[in-house]
Amino acid sequence: MNDDRNAFFASVETLDMSEYVLLDYFFESSIDPVDAAAHLCQEQSTAQWCRVGVDEDLRPLHAAKVVDLVVERNPERPCLPFQIDHWEKLWDCRVKIAYPIRNIGASIPNLLTAACGEGAFYSPGIHAIKLHDIGFPAGYLEQFAGPKFGITGIREWTGIYNRPLFFGVIKPNIGLPPEPFRDLAYESWLGGLDVAKDDELIFDTEWSPFAKRTRLLGNARADAEQKTGKKCCYLANITDEVDRLIELHDIGVRNGANMLMINAMATGLSAARMVSRHTEVPLVAHFDCVAPLTKTPYYGLHSRVVTKLQRLAGFDAIIFAGMGSRMKTYRSAVLDDVHACLGSPSLDPGASPGAGAGPAIKPALPIPGGSQWAGSLQPLFQDIGSTDFAIVPGRAVFGHPDGPRAGAMSLHQGWDAVRAGVPLREYARHHRELEVSIRQNAG
Amino acid sequence: MNDDRNAFFASVETLDMSEYVLLDYFFESSIDPVDAAAHLCQEQSTAQWCRVGVDEDLRPLHAAKVVDLVVERNPERPCLPFQIDHWEKLWDCRVKIAYPIRNIGASIPNLLTAACGEGAFYSPGIHAIKLHDIGFPAGYLEQFAGPKFGITGIREWTGIYNRPLFFGVIKPNIGLPPEPFRDLAYESWLGGLDVAKDDELIFDTEWSPFAKRTRLLGNARADAEQKTGKKCCYLANITDEVDRLIELHDIGVRNGANMLMINAMATGLSAARMVSRHTEVPLVAHFDCVAPLTKTPYYGLHSRVVTKLQRLAGFDAIIFAGMGSRMKTYRSAVLDDVHACLGSPSLDPGASPGAGAGPAIKPALPIPGGSQWAGSLQPLFQDIGSTDFAIVPGRAVFGHPDGPRAGAMSLHQGWDAVRAGVPLREYARHHRELEVSIRQNAG
Repeated sequence: MNDDRNAFFASVETLDMSEYVLLDYFFESSIDPVDAAAHLCQEQSTAQWCRVGVDEDLRPLHAAKVVDLVVERNPERPCLPFQIDHWEKLWDCRVKIAYPIRNIGASIPNLLTAACGEGAFYSPGIHAIKLHDIGFPAGYLEQFAGPKFGITGIREWTGIYNRPLFFGVIKPNIGLPPEPFRDLAYESWLGGLDVAKDDELIFDTEWSPFAKRTRLLGNARADAEQKTGKKCCYLANITDEVDRLIELHDIGVRNGANMLMINAMATGLSAARMVSRHTEVPLVAHFDCVAPLTKTPYYGLHSRVVTKLQRLAGFDAIIFAGMGSRMKTYRSAVLDDVHACLGSPSLDPGASPGAGAGPAIKPALPIPGGSQWAGSLQPLFQDIGSTDFAIVPGRAVFGHPDGPRAGAMSLHQGWDAVRAGVPLREYARHHRELEVSIRQNAG
Repeated sequence: MNDDRNAFFASVETLDMSEYVLLDYFFESSIDPVDAAAHLCQEQSTAQWCRVGVDEDLRPLHAAKVVDLVVERNPERPCLPFQIDHWEKLWDCRVKIAYPIRNIGASIPNLLTAACGEGAFYSPGIHAIKLHDIGFPAGYLEQFAGPKFGITGIREWTGIYNRPLFFGVIKPNIGLPPEPFRDLAYESWLGGLDVAKDDELIFDTEWSPFAKRTRLLGNARADAEQKTGKKCCYLANITDEVDRLIELHDIGVRNGANMLMINAMATGLSAARMVSRHTEVPLVAHFDCVAPLTKTPYYGLHSRVVTKLQRLAGFDAIIFAGMGSRMKTYRSAVLDDVHACLGSPSLDPGASPGAGAGPAIKPALPIPGGSQWAGSLQPLFQDIGSTDFAIVPGRAVFGHPDGPRAGAMSLHQGWDAVRAGVPLREYARHHRELEVSIRQNAG
């Protein structure tokens, strides 16, 4: 094996890293970690690297190669209860693998197959494995258009600068006909909501046909813009079978929906990339089907990988699991997702925001979601360290006891308090909508 | 809460179950399991079910409803290490939820959003949750075309009856130019391999352009059919960005690829459904990106759910993790996947194979994959109880010391031994290819 396994190791100095994607895994092994890492590369690429009886070696150009391996002895029982012969021998490993781009091209399904396919999850001696990060050389990124608008484009689109954006999930939604649904959105726009959005569970249905819903809300949006003198946005959910996405995009945009949402992993990243090539309005990703891929600590994918891939696929804004006990997500993981939206998707994980990616891959607007209200603004602003984010409350706007207009106003009042450096409760003394919201949310 | 939560409970006797999809979850709760189950339904459907100040209730028609709940006290620490306030109070629950079809329609992305979306994985008091099964009423299934060929169609397509089918992964693959790749496939067909297949990691690349590869193998396939007098199949991998799938299908079929493969979860189930509507040849699913969704015992999705959805999407044959220690999959889970291919996808989990689904949803050919050889046939035949399956060896055919022709022959000899009821080693005494294979694989 020694000769064999050496072909699956290299140093970044000797490889032309512009020809490789970098895959960063945690894995748990019950065999010699060096053998396990070599097996992993082999299973992911040139499993059988020569024909029987032919003197050839396909590995120099086509093998995945270990460029870093850190091993720690761990005598604990294995993370996953699969049948293991010798579980007294266990190692925790962190491995960086250079994966040849020539094997896969700039295709998301091909990349996913290489990074999260049979090879990664069924490699000999590896019982638990999680893809923690993924990095791309600049030339590879250039083959992805990335977000058409990005943060800068969304700010120009909405005319909102120097503060977080206020999205709001129109509620109730499931079962509500388009007319009252429209009335709720209209009220929220009058209160100053930036983006009234479809719930991720509202689709093109008999009781709320997409064409009718977008027409009514498109018209109401224009009325609200007339009345308020500022841009209002309706984010319509076009999630459906992929051969309907372009049709739904076109209907929505024609009817006045000026942002569109796709439940990215339920619909497929590649389908989203197709819509991104076509879209005339900002695209927003919702995080359905992400948790089962990402939530297990030692298995699957880190959510930052999913976020990076959504950005590559062309989402201008990405909603992911945010802070708060309901979201069951560590603060550090939320911030990892924020950085995946804002930072460089290049090989260098320490790159500063926007750097390295080149102008081709714009930063996406991070939207850490989950049970938010005016009081979520200060801690998020502090954690993220800039105004380049959005919140996406539902109940705090549309369940506000005084209605969606008051709910939307409470968000602005909350942000005004942050800007003024005044505690929320103090600011609320002279702002009734915020005061009611505090009672509703922080009772 | 009591009044509220009652609206999320119903009995199957009072519901018209033809209007509901049945979702069967395990979950772990730190709050009253009845409250937790009601929350789960609420988060998955009518979260806020009335407008502020309006006397209405959207739940009767649109709420997901608990139709069965089994609770067991479990004082163990929680499965997932999320922040939990009171983890001394834990319950293991099994819940069946009736989900209203009127909310989602016959759309796979919509169904995935409802069953595996934010609602399921971020419900209050639920710390671990796994979708164990999913069932569909007949009227819903009728809206899915399902497999165009199915097992019966594949048998007619190949002319192979009364035995398992022999697929083989052409090896080496990554890095090998189309000409020698063609020669390997040709040799395997002469040895009697039914389906020579692309590896899941071979795509449309510079060093093996899809058009050239399919043309060479299409021609070789015709030559092999001429020479052997029997049907030979080339299964070409069309996995790529979804807006290329139809183009690749057409090129492949025109060039003589007579089966096509899609890495289903890497490409997207909905994209596969689109190809299925269009295809002229049997479609085969490969299982990349399935493990991270399914392998954690108490989180994510059971693989049978993924298999059922692949069948709904129209795959005629489904490759999934099979037996053997490398595949780290329990025998029972493999058989669950087999049953998901063969059995009824209807509401009744005990339905006999083919029953209930109606003619619209044909059974798909189960292919439990992973390091197989001639010796894999007897145990699989015994476990499955019929010849309606395929094996998909790689090394046993293309790494056979005497070449792919001998490798393919060894599979037939292995099956002949099973049919004759003779132990493999005994049968191998007069069958050199099998004897060499035994030394290679069970040495």
